[in-house]
Amino acid sequence: MFRRIYLDHSATTPVDPEVLETMLPFLTEKFGNASSIHFFGQETRAAVDKARHQLAALINSRPNEIIFTSGGTEANNLAISGIIESRVGSPHVGSPQVSKGSTPNGSLHIITSSIEHPAVKNVCANLEKQGCNITYLPVYDDGIVRVEDVRAALRDDTILISIMAANNEIGTLQPIAEIGRLARSLRENGRKIWFHADAVQAAGKIRLDVEEIGCDLLSMSGHKIYAPKGVGALYVRRGVRLQAQNLGGRQERGLRGGTESVPLIAAFGKAAELAQQRLGEDAAKLRRIRDAFETNVFETVSDATLNGSKETRLPNISNISFGGIEGEGLLISLDMQGVAVSTGSACSSGSLEPSPVIRALGRNEDKARGAIRFSFGRNNSMEDVDQVLAILPKSIENLRRLTPAKKSVPPAAAGG
Amino acid sequence: MFRRIYLDHSATTPVDPEVLETMLPFLTEKFGNASSIHFFGQETRAAVDKARHQLAALINSRPNEIIFTSGGTEANNLAISGIIESRVGSPHVGSPQVSKGSTPNGSLHIITSSIEHPAVKNVCANLEKQGCNITYLPVYDDGIVRVEDVRAALRDDTILISIMAANNEIGTLQPIAEIGRLARSLRENGRKIWFHADAVQAAGKIRLDVEEIGCDLLSMSGHKIYAPKGVGALYVRRGVRLQAQNLGGRQERGLRGGTESVPLIAAFGKAAELAQQRLGEDAAKLRRIRDAFETNVFETVSDATLNGSKETRLPNISNISFGGIEGEGLLISLDMQGVAVSTGSACSSGSLEPSPVIRALGRNEDKARGAIRFSFGRNNSMEDVDQVLAILPKSIENLRRLTPAKKSVPPAAAGG
Repeated sequence: MFRRIYLDHSATTPVDPEVLETMLPFLTEKFGNASSIHFFGQETRAAVDKARHQLAALINSRPNEIIFTSGGTEANNLAISGIIESRVGSPHVGSPQVSKGSTPNGSLHIITSSIEHPAVKNVCANLEKQGCNITYLPVYDDGIVRVEDVRAALRDDTILISIMAANNEIGTLQPIAEIGRLARSLRENGRKIWFHADAVQAAGKIRLDVEEIGCDLLSMSGHKIYAPKGVGALYVRRGVRLQAQNLGGRQERGLRGGTESVPLIAAFGKAAELAQQRLGEDAAKLRRIRDAFETNVFETVSDATLNGSKETRLPNISNISFGGIEGEGLLISLDMQGVAVSTGSACSSGSLEPSPVIRALGRNEDKARGAIRFSFGRNNSMEDVDQVLAILPKSIENLRRLTPAKKSVPPAAAGG
Repeated sequence: MFRRIYLDHSATTPVDPEVLETMLPFLTEKFGNASSIHFFGQETRAAVDKARHQLAALINSRPNEIIFTSGGTEANNLAISGIIESRVGSPHVGSPQVSKGSTPNGSLHIITSSIEHPAVKNVCANLEKQGCNITYLPVYDDGIVRVEDVRAALRDDTILISIMAANNEIGTLQPIAEIGRLARSLRENGRKIWFHADAVQAAGKIRLDVEEIGCDLLSMSGHKIYAPKGVGALYVRRGVRLQAQNLGGRQERGLRGGTESVPLIAAFGKAAELAQQRLGEDAAKLRRIRDAFETNVFETVSDATLNGSKETRLPNISNISFGGIEGEGLLISLDMQGVAVSTGSACSSGSLEPSPVIRALGRNEDKARGAIRFSFGRNNSMEDVDQVLAILPKSIENLRRLTPAKKSVPPAAAGG
């Protein structure tokens, strides 16, 4: 049996052994509900508090600005819907005159980008149906939003800017510190406007400092940084008022009801601590491996195009369009040879449409359909890269031999 | 060091060793994102599918009627807000005339009870602020809602009935099968009305069959049945249309975005299977232990009152009011002696108000303040009961010696 190689770390990562070790006591003897007053509750409450400090340290926030959620998706939902709903006046029975799209004093406008993750895009789309106005900013062929475009999109009723820190498909870093500066300067001039950054892909991979960024809300996810799936966090700057989304008990300062998943939260805390410690080392190693991979691919495979900026991106993502093939075909071919990659975000898998992110770069449909994301992780080695490079060019060649044949079928024979 | 005794299983349970064993592979080598197309995704997808069958088997549903969530709270939010929002017309930009409290054709009414968990009560309260009409049905001194009261509360615009299967503080079983029959008969007469049952405390402890109950939505939680905290499920009867709450990817048939927590879901599946297998055995044991405990308490402690029906309740809960003491004081006293109990739901801890559930039974404030929930679990033994009984009467006596002294202080000396 061949050795399998996993190059899909942007979809999810394995749990780090130290992280697993940290969480195991909370799956065995330390099982109390962190809201319980007694001994069993106190020891798990302490674990949640510790994790809150570890997350805060990763992004230079205060611990009480960290709200634990069930994942990055919930963090994004809480951030965006939470801001909008906290600004909408509550209509009274018998006079249901106010929708989510407006406050008693007027309408609401959100600025976001055209390459956000579905967990941001779909929340905005839902608010749009409810009457909010949304501006979806373009990106350029480098996959990066321009601050000038954010500025130009501002309206009197803009109350939220939501731009991701790093894109999940192509890894491009967005100018969040500049956007943060813009939002802050507007607020200093009395405007009520907040800035949310989806940092699910960026957190733990590049340095993030919420004071430097100047964001009000920042989403993170555990399973992208070697913690288990099912836990995330939202940074909520002190003073920012949010409407809770998951209503129930008073957990997480009343912003997120539901019994805290102590094992997952403890794991996330440890993973954040490890990510912080290893940030420079991991990034350097990932960049080295990734760049060696790319150099070889562009030397050996014709009609291969890097998607997004080569420089301004995460150290671990390489998204390449191979002309004349279907990305999904290549994914399956590689999988049969033991190599795991993806075509877009796992959250969009099953879609028959080419990736909207790749389309947003201005790529034609052929190039958009032929895009593959290789995302490297802490455990990958140069040996992995060599093994992939030994099969990748041949796999592409095989697929291309099949595909052009189809394309060259003359119209008259197309039905046969 | 004394042996600690945990009698707070309604707050949370320890993870069953077999459940832990089931989840461990998904915290180590089987780490793929269940939405990924490749090998790593396929093996975790299979685990999620298996768990869905196990949950379905527990309540006699079809597997595709099970939606995994981050817990019971999220399941309740999805059920209730999901029904309401799916019935509200989407207002258009510029004509924001429709609130959540009404459809384009009229208003919306929900029937619930006065003893629901905060995860139902607070969702209803939030919808009430948005214009819905809510009827909170009373319970009688037995802690049980009457079907006649449900029927009497029906209005032309009632679209949802949400009544819990078993109460979390006193364990009383509600007549959900009768309510289900009522809802079904109304629907057969063309009424659009749905029935949701919060079965977070009941599932896995008593037999639940969604076909017999006739409910459309039923909430469950993993950590109440020996799975870890952070996973739950909502049963959604085929054909029932819900608006997703956690928006993002297309996971869970589009009803719940976010990467599936494969380890927690696999654990929940196994826990459901074990609960089903052991249902009769566990219940018999719990009832025996609990009844022995109660018999002794009522023999040895004066002014002790059982809260809720003695017969129509879960086998593992005993909620007793001790006159003349503060429940929290007794909780702390017992905790110092190694015994973990609770005063109300852990989700409400920190509240200074006496339990609204106990108040709803018609107890006076003294009795409501003196309520303690003892909730037994699979690992408790008669030895545990004996150990608790050896300290409980004395602890109560000590507290009572302090409390009446305070009460009898003459006004003039009160400041001293």
